[in-house]
Amino acid sequence: MKAYTDYLWFNTEKQKEFVNITSDCERILRESGIRDGMMLVSAMHITAGIWVNDNESGILADAMEFLERLAPFDRGYRHHRTGETNGDAHLKNLLTHHQAIIPVTAGTLDLGPWQTIFYAEFDGQRRKRVVVKVMGE
Amino acid sequence: MKAYTDYLWFNTEKQKEFVNITSDCERILRESGIRDGMMLVSAMHITAGIWVNDNESGILADAMEFLERLAPFDRGYRHHRTGETNGDAHLKNLLTHHQAIIPVTAGTLDLGPWQTIFYAEFDGQRRKRVVVKVMGE
Amino acid sequence: MKAYTDYLWFNTEKQKEFVNITSDCERILRESGIRDGMMLVSAMHITAGIWVNDNESGILADAMEFLERLAPFDRGYRHHRTGETNGDAHLKNLLTHHQAIIPVTAGTLDLGPWQTIFYAEFDGQRRKRVVVKVMGE
Repeated sequence: MKAYTDYLWFNTEKQKEFVNITSDCERILRESGIRDGMMLVSAMHITAGIWVNDNESGILADAMEFLERLAPFDRGYRHHRTGETNGDAHLKNLLTHHQAIIPVTAGTLDLGPWQTIFYAEFDGQRRKRVVVKVMGE
Repeated sequence: MKAYTDYLWFNTEKQKEFVNITSDCERILRESGIRDGMMLVSAMHITAGIWVNDNESGILADAMEFLERLAPFDRGYRHHRTGETNGDAHLKNLLTHHQAIIPVTAGTLDLGPWQTIFYAEFDGQRRKRVVVKVMGE
Repeated sequence: MKAYTDYLWFNTEKQKEFVNITSDCERILRESGIRDGMMLVSAMHITAGIWVNDNESGILADAMEFLERLAPFDRGYRHHRTGETNGDAHLKNLLTHHQAIIPVTAGTLDLGPWQTIFYAEFDGQRRKRVVVKVMGE
């Protein structure tokens, strides 16, 4: 068994944004040399997530609007007593989940025809990080 | 270390439906010969999910109604400009998450007393697929 | 490859509560002797979840209130025809997800600066369990 670890850094232009990281994950898989196993893609921050869905701009805009509707920006979050203003981003992280596991089969990411891996930034314009760990043989 | 991969195909009668796949996962585990490790169960489509919960028909109906309330069918999704009508199914996928990892201990799925593995279809009546990958020894 | 499994038991004082289990996970990692791999932390009950977020009391209170707003206690759930009263807890489990994978790198949990592992109890005051399984080398 082999394990291979790498990190992706982000500093998004917008405060809220989906970033397609599929080709980064493919590059890390090639570097790992692993042909059969699993790849963990996991946000290391608590105001971001990972979402595997379709690379269609309408869906991404719908999803961000949906998360804003369910978990809106609001001055009244208790978390804001600490001086922070990003209470909504923590709740968006809860809904989206902060990680996904991508199966690796025959040396490739074993994704369905439209599956694309997105980093979901909910409190950007600052340096943030994702850990990518591949395990297998 | 060993890795074993199989795929489950679905073509549900209803557009939205929970399908109990626990015995399929148990069969794949037996075929793998793996006794200690992890099993990834992951939808390969972007309008479906995996949910581990109780096999009680009331809960399943409550959950589907709940997802419809939070992420309703709506003509106005931007995604529908592509000609699609399943914008709600992408949002239901976001809430449900598209995968679960089942621990494998002593040659069995290490589930709690009521845990049942469901494929959650949000845009069915067409052929769709789930990847099941077991890793371990 | 090595796999190491342990279980955490809970019997929370409150019906709904976040419990910080990071140090329990660190102890299990030490006992496993694994230095590179993945740790699965997975609730074995269907009315609980695992959430990785910030150990800030305001966020935890905001998150529990948020889950109550989206998935409120309600007499009308179909599940309650079985005599149960915890229909909301099953829906809170759906939103939160019941598990997380923690990457293990250089013998430590490879978490971001504020990431803390919480057991999320939605129907407590009874004995419940989480499985923790480490795989790697």
